[in-house]
Amino acid sequence: MRLSPPGRATFSQANNLDLTFGGGESNVAISLAYFGVNTVHVTRFPDNFIGKAATQFLRHHWVDTTHVIYGGEMIGKYFIEKGSTHRPSQVVYERDGSAFAEMKPEMINWKEVLEGTDWFHWTGITPGVSQGAAESCLEAIKVANNLGITVSGDIHSRSSLWNYGKDQSEVLPPLVEGTDVVIASEFSINRVLNITENQDEIDFKSASQKLMTNYPRVTKVVDKDRTSVSASHNRIQGKMWDGKSLIRTEEYDINPIIERVGTGDAFAAGLIYGQLNMSDDEESLKFATAACSLKHTVEGDANVVSVENVINLVKGDTSGRINR
Amino acid sequence: MRLSPPGRATFSQANNLDLTFGGGESNVAISLAYFGVNTVHVTRFPDNFIGKAATQFLRHHWVDTTHVIYGGEMIGKYFIEKGSTHRPSQVVYERDGSAFAEMKPEMINWKEVLEGTDWFHWTGITPGVSQGAAESCLEAIKVANNLGITVSGDIHSRSSLWNYGKDQSEVLPPLVEGTDVVIASEFSINRVLNITENQDEIDFKSASQKLMTNYPRVTKVVDKDRTSVSASHNRIQGKMWDGKSLIRTEEYDINPIIERVGTGDAFAAGLIYGQLNMSDDEESLKFATAACSLKHTVEGDANVVSVENVINLVKGDTSGRINR
Amino acid sequence: MRLSPPGRATFSQANNLDLTFGGGESNVAISLAYFGVNTVHVTRFPDNFIGKAATQFLRHHWVDTTHVIYGGEMIGKYFIEKGSTHRPSQVVYERDGSAFAEMKPEMINWKEVLEGTDWFHWTGITPGVSQGAAESCLEAIKVANNLGITVSGDIHSRSSLWNYGKDQSEVLPPLVEGTDVVIASEFSINRVLNITENQDEIDFKSASQKLMTNYPRVTKVVDKDRTSVSASHNRIQGKMWDGKSLIRTEEYDINPIIERVGTGDAFAAGLIYGQLNMSDDEESLKFATAACSLKHTVEGDANVVSVENVINLVKGDTSGRINR
Amino acid sequence: MRLSPPGRATFSQANNLDLTFGGGESNVAISLAYFGVNTVHVTRFPDNFIGKAATQFLRHHWVDTTHVIYGGEMIGKYFIEKGSTHRPSQVVYERDGSAFAEMKPEMINWKEVLEGTDWFHWTGITPGVSQGAAESCLEAIKVANNLGITVSGDIHSRSSLWNYGKDQSEVLPPLVEGTDVVIASEFSINRVLNITENQDEIDFKSASQKLMTNYPRVTKVVDKDRTSVSASHNRIQGKMWDGKSLIRTEEYDINPIIERVGTGDAFAAGLIYGQLNMSDDEESLKFATAACSLKHTVEGDANVVSVENVINLVKGDTSGRINR
Amino acid sequence: MRLSPPGRATFSQANNLDLTFGGGESNVAISLAYFGVNTVHVTRFPDNFIGKAATQFLRHHWVDTTHVIYGGEMIGKYFIEKGSTHRPSQVVYERDGSAFAEMKPEMINWKEVLEGTDWFHWTGITPGVSQGAAESCLEAIKVANNLGITVSGDIHSRSSLWNYGKDQSEVLPPLVEGTDVVIASEFSINRVLNITENQDEIDFKSASQKLMTNYPRVTKVVDKDRTSVSASHNRIQGKMWDGKSLIRTEEYDINPIIERVGTGDAFAAGLIYGQLNMSDDEESLKFATAACSLKHTVEGDANVVSVENVINLVKGDTSGRINR
Amino acid sequence: MRLSPPGRATFSQANNLDLTFGGGESNVAISLAYFGVNTVHVTRFPDNFIGKAATQFLRHHWVDTTHVIYGGEMIGKYFIEKGSTHRPSQVVYERDGSAFAEMKPEMINWKEVLEGTDWFHWTGITPGVSQGAAESCLEAIKVANNLGITVSGDIHSRSSLWNYGKDQSEVLPPLVEGTDVVIASEFSINRVLNITENQDEIDFKSASQKLMTNYPRVTKVVDKDRTSVSASHNRIQGKMWDGKSLIRTEEYDINPIIERVGTGDAFAAGLIYGQLNMSDDEESLKFATAACSLKHTVEGDANVVSVENVINLVKGDTSGRINR
Repeated sequence: MRLSPPGRATFSQANNLDLTFGGGESNVAISLAYFGVNTVHVTRFPDNFIGKAATQFLRHHWVDTTHVIYGGEMIGKYFIEKGSTHRPSQVVYERDGSAFAEMKPEMINWKEVLEGTDWFHWTGITPGVSQGAAESCLEAIKVANNLGITVSGDIHSRSSLWNYGKDQSEVLPPLVEGTDVVIASEFSINRVLNITENQDEIDFKSASQKLMTNYPRVTKVVDKDRTSVSASHNRIQGKMWDGKSLIRTEEYDINPIIERVGTGDAFAAGLIYGQLNMSDDEESLKFATAACSLKHTVEGDANVVSVENVINLVKGDTSGRINR
Repeated sequence: MRLSPPGRATFSQANNLDLTFGGGESNVAISLAYFGVNTVHVTRFPDNFIGKAATQFLRHHWVDTTHVIYGGEMIGKYFIEKGSTHRPSQVVYERDGSAFAEMKPEMINWKEVLEGTDWFHWTGITPGVSQGAAESCLEAIKVANNLGITVSGDIHSRSSLWNYGKDQSEVLPPLVEGTDVVIASEFSINRVLNITENQDEIDFKSASQKLMTNYPRVTKVVDKDRTSVSASHNRIQGKMWDGKSLIRTEEYDINPIIERVGTGDAFAAGLIYGQLNMSDDEESLKFATAACSLKHTVEGDANVVSVENVINLVKGDTSGRINR
Repeated sequence: MRLSPPGRATFSQANNLDLTFGGGESNVAISLAYFGVNTVHVTRFPDNFIGKAATQFLRHHWVDTTHVIYGGEMIGKYFIEKGSTHRPSQVVYERDGSAFAEMKPEMINWKEVLEGTDWFHWTGITPGVSQGAAESCLEAIKVANNLGITVSGDIHSRSSLWNYGKDQSEVLPPLVEGTDVVIASEFSINRVLNITENQDEIDFKSASQKLMTNYPRVTKVVDKDRTSVSASHNRIQGKMWDGKSLIRTEEYDINPIIERVGTGDAFAAGLIYGQLNMSDDEESLKFATAACSLKHTVEGDANVVSVENVINLVKGDTSGRINR
Repeated sequence: MRLSPPGRATFSQANNLDLTFGGGESNVAISLAYFGVNTVHVTRFPDNFIGKAATQFLRHHWVDTTHVIYGGEMIGKYFIEKGSTHRPSQVVYERDGSAFAEMKPEMINWKEVLEGTDWFHWTGITPGVSQGAAESCLEAIKVANNLGITVSGDIHSRSSLWNYGKDQSEVLPPLVEGTDVVIASEFSINRVLNITENQDEIDFKSASQKLMTNYPRVTKVVDKDRTSVSASHNRIQGKMWDGKSLIRTEEYDINPIIERVGTGDAFAAGLIYGQLNMSDDEESLKFATAACSLKHTVEGDANVVSVENVINLVKGDTSGRINR
Repeated sequence: MRLSPPGRATFSQANNLDLTFGGGESNVAISLAYFGVNTVHVTRFPDNFIGKAATQFLRHHWVDTTHVIYGGEMIGKYFIEKGSTHRPSQVVYERDGSAFAEMKPEMINWKEVLEGTDWFHWTGITPGVSQGAAESCLEAIKVANNLGITVSGDIHSRSSLWNYGKDQSEVLPPLVEGTDVVIASEFSINRVLNITENQDEIDFKSASQKLMTNYPRVTKVVDKDRTSVSASHNRIQGKMWDGKSLIRTEEYDINPIIERVGTGDAFAAGLIYGQLNMSDDEESLKFATAACSLKHTVEGDANVVSVENVINLVKGDTSGRINR
Repeated sequence: MRLSPPGRATFSQANNLDLTFGGGESNVAISLAYFGVNTVHVTRFPDNFIGKAATQFLRHHWVDTTHVIYGGEMIGKYFIEKGSTHRPSQVVYERDGSAFAEMKPEMINWKEVLEGTDWFHWTGITPGVSQGAAESCLEAIKVANNLGITVSGDIHSRSSLWNYGKDQSEVLPPLVEGTDVVIASEFSINRVLNITENQDEIDFKSASQKLMTNYPRVTKVVDKDRTSVSASHNRIQGKMWDGKSLIRTEEYDINPIIERVGTGDAFAAGLIYGQLNMSDDEESLKFATAACSLKHTVEGDANVVSVENVINLVKGDTSGRINR
């Protein structure tokens, strides 16, 4: 559940809040659903009108919510004050004690959920929330591996959000072990590899190579480079190491940014769409990067653009001319 | 922190929420502040922009926030869908793990807080939230007793909200022991007295007498009778047992109701104002009941009417003619 | 210019305000324009974007603004907090120094304005604002008298708003002298007649008779009786003394009231419409009372209902069934 | 698609509009979905972002939209100004040329749609929109009859909306022929029976009896009596002729009304829920009437209350006390 | 009638819409009215509260609506989702069957309308809507020619919107024949001239020359060059071929764009204002281009800036410093 | 009191207004309060719900309002239409006759107010409003001088706003005489020095030197250079003459601007904070300039950023990355 003051106001200036719902995996699910992919989101919400409203939000945005389970006392939340230019956005998380944080293994029948699907996606947010969520995620990955389903994991994850007593280098390795496509920066990779020295000398390609050496299931490592000129102006470039070569897309210049949140998830959704529908890694990386770029112009957490919108941008139409 | 869809919409229909702040004691504090009484609210908020906004809300409504302390992870919340006619309002509470629920004795220097004040008010919400909050409340009452400060307690409290392992009959007695003016229904009183039999035969007067016998500090028991014709139409009448006689006010007919929440707190604030400023118990009961009645016409949790507004109603002006 | 918090909120709860424009005569003008009458409003606004917006508001609501003049520093304003049930609406006026208050005789070329019109209407608000406005109003009435135009005056006027050093009994008589149709309560009439004794014994008929004796041009005295059950519930009945008989309409029960302001002006507009279009005084009084009653259900200062809406109510359809 | 000014404003006062979606059958579908019934809505929307948004609205409110088809140029619309007290709501329809009005037989594969369902519901709105819609509706009823699915039809339908050259007495009979449960007033029935004389002497029971004689499949005729005190205050009572006896429920008093639109559809949904889940006709009629009554307190076209809400009202709890 | 989600939201994210009115010719009319020119808009609206609201919108914005006629079933509409940066705005039109599309010759008494006016302006939108609208437009042009009134035509018109069976090269020539000042790109001109080959080699000057050769009444061909850096950032430069020389203005850089819609109409209005009030073509082209540039910063379809605002920009003040 | 249409709309497009409160000195007070400084604002408001709401706004934003006095008829106001790119914001002031304009010497007990404070700040707005306000300001400065309190004055002041019969060169000198830190442009300084010739040759340093020569109490002259690329894009650089050297900060590029108003007051607040808390003039100038820069991204008149926000920008973090 996401609550934010309208426009660029702060909480100290607001007496009403915009309400929407968002989260790493659900953002990916919604974006894929707008691309026309049948997408199931699996989570746990409280069994009250707020949990229902969260499910309704997912249904509204075309996601299949058959496997949402209900229980617990509260929904995970975040509050955001949107910044501008030099003023950063400010976020407060409230996740302790949420229905999701209190998930436990075996609450979800992963075999039933995953049977017949082509792809399973997880993010580093989930194992960072709680021990139970991490275990539940691992459980899912193992079932996916057994069923021969491709697994992608976006392991970007702020250390500061890991506050249940374990850290990333302890929890992430078994998850990455079952993952085929890893979305990660060189810094995230090194946390998985537990490399803490010489952070200045890290580069994406050699980190990716090391990751593949240690985790043989991983066949692709993907990320985007972001240049933050200001809170209103960013540049984005996609990159991928596929074990043989480093692919880079052109750089998109985004100014002004309508909403910075959820752009990484839009990238992941674009990548998954590309991997499912395009024969070529470079094409799917371009698609992912253009999708990510477009998300900066979309309000809310999730990307609601169509495949056609993304393809037009990939083809080079950055003019924003009105479609009539 | 209170979040509600605009108008009579439900969460399933909303994509923005009205934001305000409310709670038993803070509602009383704000109402008294609008009556011109110097009022200090003591609580604990998280040390982030939400906790700050809560404090700012209290300052905005004239309350002294010098003794608010900061800490913990989240603010207590409730979500409300406002009903109408036969459709009841629906409330979801989120209080577990809140900054307030995690209060502990000695977090507040009650002696410093209470020195020089005339009155201390607590409600049954606080001891129902957590063991720590209950202990902190008791701590305050004892200090108030030592300093010779009048103590009032509004012990209405929904059993369903007591979920930390203790119940009302266990926790409330020591608090009532230090209380001079008790606001309570006959049912609440019997929970304090641990009388569970013959609930049908309970009446306000005899329950009040029993309470006074068992708790000799108690000198007045006060309450209001509410007739709920519908969610939009109520009738309110005040009553008081002062140890000698049962005083009843006239009945106010309120139709339509703008906001039902916080009307009990408006009653308490009116009573305290009356006790502090009027020589006569009947006058203060009338003031309390009229204040309560007016609160039904005010948006939000807290009563923002003036003494003059209340006095006009006490004097019998129910015409609602425009003041120019 | 009228500014009010949304819904039933108070200024202390608002951070945005509903903006509209209203005033005694302009409300009458708009209502008549919605009845299909060509209506010209004459006033003075400041020559800035606020004065322009006021003119645009009148144009929007079908009024001819050809004779609005511009000058001065500010627009007259009022601020209103809408009450409910026992809570009265609160109004703050800001009229001193407004473009209108600073009107002076000869600013308006009344001959040019009035040539060819059938009716001139003034209210007691205008002479109460300032000496210049009173003089300008008198100037207009005299021109209307010379041109043989029927003049109506609604002399309801709160004494408390007369703060430029003269009172009603001094200023109103020459204005009433040139007026054919007077809308007034018995109390207003007595202020014109400078009768200050035995206010308890005043009745509408005998006051009207006395007025006609003293002011022979007056042929009709009209008013409505209002029973204020609460700010949300009123009853309205029209009455007229035409020199021979006292006509009374049926009483309308209005519950709930959406907006109390401007209902007197809606009555005046209905009366003028009736006088211009109906052969019978009783019919026009019925029309006026039904129009007034409907205004209580309309947001803003001015009545925006059609002749058909009013006629339906006159005919007895109070069912409010949906028109499809 | 429904567009309405906020609150009680008129179009002449608005510069933004509330957007929702509604229509006879979709309102029934949503209400049943909130009762927990798996509900499929079948319609035709334009293939653009508006048609998509309409589908998303249905998904949001738990309806299965698998069988929505896309095509045509525009969506059917209605505009509503909400009235109050004596001021009726005003509606403008725009349905000519809509995607739905241009439906043709065989556009929907009704066999596929209806296979495995228990109930099919249609309303008199559909055959009134266009020849194609009427034929498509008949097509569906026939398939339902063949599959042994219970058919209900709510044949209330304003004559003024039939503007494609055929009238009700011509189009409705073959539809009623395939219908088991008819929701209709005596006047609607007589239009089906093509009885035009002695409208004053019509009564519900004898009209129902005649209908059953002529249309032997019909086993129940159901309706509600509405007393329109004003646009803000109605009374509702349910009635049913089951071929043997006339059942009547108690009367509900609704004051104030939040939204009058869609209350008939809420009644139909309640009835269908009752028929599917309750053994007793009287119980299902009570459920229908209570559901209808609650809808008057709900914003928008569709009822979003739960079975539990309705049951509480059936049990007699009209107090509207807050559910905490 | 224009309906759009607030801010940069999409229809899938909105539950209320901003309401305004716009259209090629009415945008020009409003902009000229804000420049102080007496402007009459001639169109056809449905005779209901929506048609009335459209007229009121025009009156609000200073346009004379005396010659609006009423009839038909619905108003023409468009829906817009505003884009940003690389995300284009999306538009859905609903014009078939509108009151305007169903205009027929002789519905308007053009002689009465045009008598005494100085200028008549039409756009390529009108003849693209329907055969009747095209014929009505031609009828007006002929009357204007007879009365010696200058005629301007903005023939930009998207081919995709011509869906009544005729195309631009068939319908536009007789209209252009009666036009003095043509606003057109080289591509639009070639559609009129029915030149379909070598589109790459088209240039504005030679196309304009050819147009003048074929249509001797045309004395000026005017257009603007737009560089679309993104949906948020455009550059605009005016150009005119007056039969002898090609005039070009400086280029304005607009970033960020508040609203892209209606900027062409603002250009036309600026040009007409210049032609009516300035002795020099270059001055009027500068005025047109500056007006167009300013429109990008104005919400809604129509330009609401003053002559003074435009002149300041023509003089080179692009600083946007606050006017106090 | 500040009233503005939402977003970039004009008054002619609005029917609701954003309400906030602002003014030179109160903006400085609020900004300092957000920096954690105990700040008292002294002013005069009308004794009605608007004056109360103004006080509540200040309390909300952490300012001490103990010394606000009440009286007079109206509150000073300004109305603003926010511009964009080349379109300038438009402001209308209404200050004549305001409670503040009618301040007189001895209304405030300055000795009581200032006792125990470290700093007194005034702006050139105050002496420009009225003779009484100017005298009251001088009174305060003299008391501050006697108490040894540092005085700062921001003497920027638009000549056009001085309309009570005196001009800046007459009124400002005695105020500057008692001022230690002057915030002023070279043009403002020359108005104080009554230098009217050779305005082209003015430079900040020599003007500051002359000011110090004439007003020996002045020890620092401070200002910012603003490059107005457009209403949406400015550049800001701080400068200070401390009697010995001219300090300049780096230049901040701000694009887009959320709100231009109040940026000068944010600069003043930053400077005062720096002077109170930093040992070094350059540090305090950097702090002031960064604070000013951040204010451009904040809605409303007053800066609500924290010391930490400013320090981060001073340290060079202009990336606007989200703080989680």
